[in-house]
Amino acid sequence: MAGNSFGKLFCITTYGESHGPAMGVIIDGCPPGIELTEDMVNVELARRRPGQSAIVSQRKEQDQAIILSGVYEGITTGTPIAIQINNEDPKSKDYKSLENIFRPSHADYTYKAKYGFRDHRGGGRASARETVARVAAGAVAKRILMQEGIEVFSYVQSVGNIFLEKEYQSLDLNSIDANEVRCPDAETAKQMFQYIQDIKKNGDSIGGTIFTVVKGCPVGLGAPVFDKLHADIGKVILSINACKGIEFGSGFEGAKMLGSEHNDVFSTDDNNVFTLTNHSGGIQGGISNGMDITFRSVFKPVATIIKEQDTLDTNFNKITFKGVGRHDPCVLPRAVPIVDSMTAIVLVDHFLRNLKLKK
Amino acid sequence: MAGNSFGKLFCITTYGESHGPAMGVIIDGCPPGIELTEDMVNVELARRRPGQSAIVSQRKEQDQAIILSGVYEGITTGTPIAIQINNEDPKSKDYKSLENIFRPSHADYTYKAKYGFRDHRGGGRASARETVARVAAGAVAKRILMQEGIEVFSYVQSVGNIFLEKEYQSLDLNSIDANEVRCPDAETAKQMFQYIQDIKKNGDSIGGTIFTVVKGCPVGLGAPVFDKLHADIGKVILSINACKGIEFGSGFEGAKMLGSEHNDVFSTDDNNVFTLTNHSGGIQGGISNGMDITFRSVFKPVATIIKEQDTLDTNFNKITFKGVGRHDPCVLPRAVPIVDSMTAIVLVDHFLRNLKLKK
Amino acid sequence: MAGNSFGKLFCITTYGESHGPAMGVIIDGCPPGIELTEDMVNVELARRRPGQSAIVSQRKEQDQAIILSGVYEGITTGTPIAIQINNEDPKSKDYKSLENIFRPSHADYTYKAKYGFRDHRGGGRASARETVARVAAGAVAKRILMQEGIEVFSYVQSVGNIFLEKEYQSLDLNSIDANEVRCPDAETAKQMFQYIQDIKKNGDSIGGTIFTVVKGCPVGLGAPVFDKLHADIGKVILSINACKGIEFGSGFEGAKMLGSEHNDVFSTDDNNVFTLTNHSGGIQGGISNGMDITFRSVFKPVATIIKEQDTLDTNFNKITFKGVGRHDPCVLPRAVPIVDSMTAIVLVDHFLRNLKLKK
Amino acid sequence: MAGNSFGKLFCITTYGESHGPAMGVIIDGCPPGIELTEDMVNVELARRRPGQSAIVSQRKEQDQAIILSGVYEGITTGTPIAIQINNEDPKSKDYKSLENIFRPSHADYTYKAKYGFRDHRGGGRASARETVARVAAGAVAKRILMQEGIEVFSYVQSVGNIFLEKEYQSLDLNSIDANEVRCPDAETAKQMFQYIQDIKKNGDSIGGTIFTVVKGCPVGLGAPVFDKLHADIGKVILSINACKGIEFGSGFEGAKMLGSEHNDVFSTDDNNVFTLTNHSGGIQGGISNGMDITFRSVFKPVATIIKEQDTLDTNFNKITFKGVGRHDPCVLPRAVPIVDSMTAIVLVDHFLRNLKLKK
Repeated sequence: MAGNSFGKLFCITTYGESHGPAMGVIIDGCPPGIELTEDMVNVELARRRPGQSAIVSQRKEQDQAIILSGVYEGITTGTPIAIQINNEDPKSKDYKSLENIFRPSHADYTYKAKYGFRDHRGGGRASARETVARVAAGAVAKRILMQEGIEVFSYVQSVGNIFLEKEYQSLDLNSIDANEVRCPDAETAKQMFQYIQDIKKNGDSIGGTIFTVVKGCPVGLGAPVFDKLHADIGKVILSINACKGIEFGSGFEGAKMLGSEHNDVFSTDDNNVFTLTNHSGGIQGGISNGMDITFRSVFKPVATIIKEQDTLDTNFNKITFKGVGRHDPCVLPRAVPIVDSMTAIVLVDHFLRNLKLKK
Repeated sequence: MAGNSFGKLFCITTYGESHGPAMGVIIDGCPPGIELTEDMVNVELARRRPGQSAIVSQRKEQDQAIILSGVYEGITTGTPIAIQINNEDPKSKDYKSLENIFRPSHADYTYKAKYGFRDHRGGGRASARETVARVAAGAVAKRILMQEGIEVFSYVQSVGNIFLEKEYQSLDLNSIDANEVRCPDAETAKQMFQYIQDIKKNGDSIGGTIFTVVKGCPVGLGAPVFDKLHADIGKVILSINACKGIEFGSGFEGAKMLGSEHNDVFSTDDNNVFTLTNHSGGIQGGISNGMDITFRSVFKPVATIIKEQDTLDTNFNKITFKGVGRHDPCVLPRAVPIVDSMTAIVLVDHFLRNLKLKK
Repeated sequence: MAGNSFGKLFCITTYGESHGPAMGVIIDGCPPGIELTEDMVNVELARRRPGQSAIVSQRKEQDQAIILSGVYEGITTGTPIAIQINNEDPKSKDYKSLENIFRPSHADYTYKAKYGFRDHRGGGRASARETVARVAAGAVAKRILMQEGIEVFSYVQSVGNIFLEKEYQSLDLNSIDANEVRCPDAETAKQMFQYIQDIKKNGDSIGGTIFTVVKGCPVGLGAPVFDKLHADIGKVILSINACKGIEFGSGFEGAKMLGSEHNDVFSTDDNNVFTLTNHSGGIQGGISNGMDITFRSVFKPVATIIKEQDTLDTNFNKITFKGVGRHDPCVLPRAVPIVDSMTAIVLVDHFLRNLKLKK
Repeated sequence: MAGNSFGKLFCITTYGESHGPAMGVIIDGCPPGIELTEDMVNVELARRRPGQSAIVSQRKEQDQAIILSGVYEGITTGTPIAIQINNEDPKSKDYKSLENIFRPSHADYTYKAKYGFRDHRGGGRASARETVARVAAGAVAKRILMQEGIEVFSYVQSVGNIFLEKEYQSLDLNSIDANEVRCPDAETAKQMFQYIQDIKKNGDSIGGTIFTVVKGCPVGLGAPVFDKLHADIGKVILSINACKGIEFGSGFEGAKMLGSEHNDVFSTDDNNVFTLTNHSGGIQGGISNGMDITFRSVFKPVATIIKEQDTLDTNFNKITFKGVGRHDPCVLPRAVPIVDSMTAIVLVDHFLRNLKLKK
């Protein structure tokens, strides 16, 4: 209710501040009987971990999952799964100077105005460090999806003006993690990497887009009206720090299309119903239709830059200020596993919501 | 839980099928003491009503609100407000021929697959007629926003390739309803109107975009992490039939920007804190910052077209089929009040969630 | 959230005031494929209907269910079921004199203090007339329970000091409706009937208790910790007007028992696991164990009596006042179907919550 | 949704198993600006702690609260409060022998049937050790109540047949913790203590009742219909391990009363509205009326006894079995702070739900 929980049947609640002792997540509603170990979670955390390459924040965190409940002898029991990740390298001192500053395009001002009190260190609860707890939950969700034959693939489609034009069908989606940028086209990835390094040297930051495709989703996920599958995916993706937009299937391009061009014609072969095109992005009337689910999300450049900027202090005096603290020049590579995780969580939630009475 | 409710403190639940006896909404959580009459609701319903102009569906519905509870002598009492709108012109016969067809890009196939049973008449629950209940709820939400000095303005920004390039600041937002298209630029509206008429003559349909601005929103609405203000707005706008995407502030353009360009610098005059630019779209860290909230949503062309199309029947045989039933060649003009309504509902919900303990 | 909804997967929301135009309920989450007609609902409404005998309120209501959505050709479709019951005999004039009075032990004072505004006619939303909507929802829940072989039986166990000592196992539970009191022991029922008639003649009212047994409940319903099956049953039964307490299994008598007496020893025959005693009331650790679920609820005497009483007017002046309006001298006979209904709703909700992933 | 959360605006989620590494609670929705330290939580935990006297379980737990988030420099920030309590003395070996046994009147059988998998050690999630997390949350709730002038007092009213006949008004409620039994009448407490010691020596257990009174509750808490204040209190008290019933105000005695006896007559003095009697238990129409809120709850004897009992093993073979593990011969003294805590949590939740729009 206060906004730190998501999901109806697979419900996650996260806690922790960037520079407090620990981050964590409680997953209530995970079915019993799923194999789950700390290592399975760690694999996903490693994809999001700072310090993993030259183009991400150099904060040093091992990000090791500690499972505190809900798993017995490597199997989920149906009781709440608590996963904790300790903060090892907070460097709170770095942030002392920020105590009385409203940094541009950060949440400093809005949190202060809303709550009156805040933990300013490293953005506190507003920090993207919160997403480590989401990825831990996503790791659990992915175990369930795997069992059901559903796979989520996200990759960096653009950084600044560098845009991967190829369609996802022509890419090797298993090569996403083959480079630091998480763009499954080696040549484009190389350009992106170089570009991000230049941005970083310059003390600046840059935005980009992520393309996501879900394969193997059965027909029938999503609830009509308010909890349409893409509405719920939209909500959680938009809830990721720095995300400013999302589009499904034809997306904004669909605004320019005629119905006769846009309609996805149903067809069939011996075994399957499918559509000849997929402008719907795999979702019709809010419910998955068995085709690939596709969407694209956009992330603004991170607000922390190592440049002089005008702003206000907490007494509303005009000051100048230069960013400090370790930061990502481009969040996209680390946003990939977060987008994967949030998508997986929504899919599991709707999968469980779609269980049916036996005849 | 089954997806027909939205909102935590201002919670709406809609019911009704396109060709059933009535549509309706229950609003649970409306504060007591708000002036509310059926006429106040009817004004909003009239903006969404079919048959209001030559470029919308000609289904004849008076769409008169009947308030069944929650209001006594013109004042809300704090108990649930039930508003019903009878269906007067269902013409179910038109749909008899559709009983055994999966129309392309409709929800026929997904509903059938999900539920096994469906009311096929006019799309049943999947019909955009459901949104009449949302607009009724939106009318109530707007009464509360009015009292708090918050205004929501949505307008048609593009239809097909016709795009209104002017910024919202240069438009007269009070003239949105001055033309049938709901584009507050008379010249552009005229082009759009002509274009939609041509589309209609052709039996086709066309997509477009809506621009929304919220004025007067106080600082502090929105909850951190999952219930960020734009995440909740995103969810409800994406839940509107035919909506395929949404972007806030700089949106997808932000992908190409540097942090040093994108950051919104705080400043102040004698009375207010503001930012010099508004790439954030009025929301930072998921919480409103007092600037205008801005977003853009895209609507695909409606699936019903009066053209021959290939598809499958409910036995999965390939057939050809030509659309019947009254439909909108372009949903944008009627989507405007729906976008307004859903935005208003989210804002009221977060306004109530932001009430504070007295010191 | 504002308290007019209950249930997680089988979620009901009621609306309507005693003297408004209609009462109603929206059921969101009813599975598709359940046979449902208005007559099936009417059968249950008739059990609760005023005017059904000499010992209940003589308000004349036909209480005919109108199904507005969610059912097509006699089968539920999975979309929200809206059921409306029109108010036909409100006699609001009777209540004009009550506009400025806080009646003793009614909700007049608390509603006024909470909301500032209220519909005073017949108690408005606080009236037990609200329960007609619950019974309509209960009728739907019972259809699902029937399909799963689960039956709920409630009967009047005591009225004032007249107490049916026989255990439920020795009663014919199919004879509950055989008399006006709904006590399945003809001799005791006769005494109760006579006693209630005397109370009524006297302008007074009397309390009593209801005993409920659920037969055929499978093992496994109920969720650990907060949503224990008896906790959820407790909540909804206590939410019925005039209910002041509930006890499960051994109940308050259990306070005096030793563990060695109270423990229910497990045993087995060829087909079943069972316990030799059932002090647990069919629920262990919050989860049904397959034995009969048993509980007892108490209803205070209704506050409306046709006797002179001291009280305050809405300006806090001391006045005397004599009850008007039609009322029940004893709510117990009509409370029976309400207790049945609320129990059925909780059971269906937990039944749906207990659906499992397929292996 | 899976039952490990409670509360709408002040929402708690607990995790942890009896013999896992830790127990904990996340509180989402605690207002910012409340003073909170680990010591404030520890004071409440000490009231519930095992080993605190000769008549409770001798499991050795320090039960020290570790606040992981939501508090900065001793003040709540409005972000989720995570409190963890490590398990220090699990003695899991004691439970090895129980792995394949369904103990009588425990949750072993129902958990196994529901989930297929369970952590059998010490009852796992079904253990009353879970309540340590509730008491931690209750400590936070009590800080808010204190600020609002609301106090909750629970005490042991009966153990077995030893019943404290005095009314709460004649007792010194500040002396509840003056003895090990938590009965604020020294003479009765002494008898109870002696009786419990005898029970313990005998390897048996005994039930009892707790009386609770809330002082200083403002008028207006509670929501109509399903979330009546006593319905929500009823739910959470019934959700406490071993609780089998609850009654408010006149309770089960009310069944025998006439309306003319039971009605609480309103009166007034210069400053206050009050009722001359309080059969309503401080709640009318589900909403607090400003009088003391009173209720009584019953706890069955704990299932663990050190006596030979018949039961089944997990292969459904009949066996005999004798309890092992440390246990409470009578849960009542330790249940007192749990009842206090759950009551405080409900009151805070409804206090926040009762915040109003400013005029």
